[in-house]
Amino acid sequence: MIIALLTDFGNRDWFVGVMKGVISQINPNVRIIDITHEISPQNVREAGFVLWNAYKYFPPKTIFVSVVDPGVGSERKIIAVETDKYIFVAPDNGLLDFVLSEVEVLRSVYVENKNYFLEKVSSTFHGRDIFAPVSAYISRGVDISELGNEFKIEKSKKMFVEILSEGSYRGEVIYIDRFGNLITNLRTFGEIEGEVKFKETTINKISKTYSDVEVSNVVALIDSSGLIEIGIRNGNAREFFKANLGDEVFIWVKSINAR
Amino acid sequence: MIIALLTDFGNRDWFVGVMKGVISQINPNVRIIDITHEISPQNVREAGFVLWNAYKYFPPKTIFVSVVDPGVGSERKIIAVETDKYIFVAPDNGLLDFVLSEVEVLRSVYVENKNYFLEKVSSTFHGRDIFAPVSAYISRGVDISELGNEFKIEKSKKMFVEILSEGSYRGEVIYIDRFGNLITNLRTFGEIEGEVKFKETTINKISKTYSDVEVSNVVALIDSSGLIEIGIRNGNAREFFKANLGDEVFIWVKSINAR
Amino acid sequence: MIIALLTDFGNRDWFVGVMKGVISQINPNVRIIDITHEISPQNVREAGFVLWNAYKYFPPKTIFVSVVDPGVGSERKIIAVETDKYIFVAPDNGLLDFVLSEVEVLRSVYVENKNYFLEKVSSTFHGRDIFAPVSAYISRGVDISELGNEFKIEKSKKMFVEILSEGSYRGEVIYIDRFGNLITNLRTFGEIEGEVKFKETTINKISKTYSDVEVSNVVALIDSSGLIEIGIRNGNAREFFKANLGDEVFIWVKSINAR
Repeated sequence: MIIALLTDFGNRDWFVGVMKGVISQINPNVRIIDITHEISPQNVREAGFVLWNAYKYFPPKTIFVSVVDPGVGSERKIIAVETDKYIFVAPDNGLLDFVLSEVEVLRSVYVENKNYFLEKVSSTFHGRDIFAPVSAYISRGVDISELGNEFKIEKSKKMFVEILSEGSYRGEVIYIDRFGNLITNLRTFGEIEGEVKFKETTINKISKTYSDVEVSNVVALIDSSGLIEIGIRNGNAREFFKANLGDEVFIWVKSINAR
Repeated sequence: MIIALLTDFGNRDWFVGVMKGVISQINPNVRIIDITHEISPQNVREAGFVLWNAYKYFPPKTIFVSVVDPGVGSERKIIAVETDKYIFVAPDNGLLDFVLSEVEVLRSVYVENKNYFLEKVSSTFHGRDIFAPVSAYISRGVDISELGNEFKIEKSKKMFVEILSEGSYRGEVIYIDRFGNLITNLRTFGEIEGEVKFKETTINKISKTYSDVEVSNVVALIDSSGLIEIGIRNGNAREFFKANLGDEVFIWVKSINAR
Repeated sequence: MIIALLTDFGNRDWFVGVMKGVISQINPNVRIIDITHEISPQNVREAGFVLWNAYKYFPPKTIFVSVVDPGVGSERKIIAVETDKYIFVAPDNGLLDFVLSEVEVLRSVYVENKNYFLEKVSSTFHGRDIFAPVSAYISRGVDISELGNEFKIEKSKKMFVEILSEGSYRGEVIYIDRFGNLITNLRTFGEIEGEVKFKETTINKISKTYSDVEVSNVVALIDSSGLIEIGIRNGNAREFFKANLGDEVFIWVKSINAR
């Protein structure tokens, strides 16, 4: 059984270590895998996007615990969502929107049963006092119906701009990775020929991989999650373009072959 | 059995990975949990404070190995301290002061028995050559009396300014977390009404959580470890106040209810 | 069984977490240890040096998976190398040169058998699609001869300047650690008396450890891997010297005693 952790707690303070301590007290045998703890502070959308990129590569029954939680201590609720393969625990703040846009939800509940919390719950560190123990109890076999009342979760709005046919599309940069690659919300399930335009630059080919272009050249490709990505071979596109999240990206699709 | 690691080795070099390799050679079954490796280089006090925030959330019998060790290779000693619940291994440089201020020590010994070190001990990397193997042997059941001579450890001086009654107190910023929250050494076990003054700003309420104030407003609250903390809702108090470790913080307590 | 991971993927994105998810799907019982994921982007030589410092401290049979891979998706090959103690999987780009300079290779193969890859292999994320599943299958007992054709790997050129006798040697800074210590490619297996010259500074003693000199003083010593290192006690030599990788370092050896 695996608990996968995703937070904005960083790796500098004691927050993540303490969550693991709490989990280990309740279930000494569960395996804990870090997805990341370096989500930009309180950036719920970034957390949701990272989770979406990661979750499908984990074994069935993995429990995903995501804590990016600007509303901690307020009236915001915590939710647990069971799909055919996984369980997700997160604040009820939209963090799960990307995932919910493509999974089939079996049940969703509010996490409210204090029997599964630490005895003393602080107002500022629910990662330690609620998320960690609740996920540990789930990993021990507690059914999520024990955690609180069931509710019907809303299927999320469209999270991506889907490229389904020829034509032009407008998307935006939704993530910039450590290499400075610009990942957009333009998604395709096929192979594409066409042109990408970003700022003043037109990239007149969709490549397969970075090394399809010369070193230091701009490259557009379909990334490993099916999203249009702009990079620079052996370079940093974020710096080169002075790019930011939200920057517009255009694609003109001349032909598309569904895979 | 868990070994919890706390160092200033960072996550960039090979230092932590190597410690885990050594531990795994000696005890392949022990679980290793990172508290953090991003303590500011050679900042012993910061390490001690982080350890204090973390240790009590770990399962009984956890072995805490803390390596922030500016005196490595000199005559400074390494100590192992057994309490009713845990074992702590650290350089004898004050790192354990915060923890020792509140635990009951059963035994303390100097770590000197070379049988539990790597065969070849370098002068600069005792994390690998001493701390890792010693902790792995302890996790295999070696009694700390095997490690070296017993000695009587000094109960530490007061590490916090305790708020026990109405009145005014002067403390200081002792830690700044990744969100830029300013954590002080003003500690309370109760609920407090009063005012906090930091630099030119008076905060005339002790809140329960960040969301008790409007976004971007300054908030004072009792943090999840019982310490007075100054933050900015969805913002960064370190940047806002240009705050530093050691900055003075005043609190005027009008009423206090012990919990 | 241990899989040790070394990449330039960083700890911010989902790349490492996803690799661990994939590994756990194929072998839920393998232990995963991170050496580091903070190799400078696409710096193959740095990755090789870090791996060299780390590998010999891991238990026999450890599988080392190193992914610093500027040529991902191109015609570059992936190799698996078996030595008397370990298995190494890496791109065929020189990453293993440091290790190969001192191990005895039993067999080396190209990693080509798609049966051990993820079903769908992207052009940009072989860490997830090839390296992770291949290493997981090896950890389950798949012989590397199953992975692809055997080939004869070249013993690498000299990676270090070996100090074997009196005289003067010229080396360079090959790594700068998180403390700002400057690690050179000047290697010795003995104890040395002599002088080190770096930029305008002459250090007229080889110390045993940092605390052999006063706080803030420059120190030259033999590091825990046998390499000449320049540091500043409780300070940062990188900043003090404005040092860079590749900077020249000279040593004049007056006497040497083999250990």
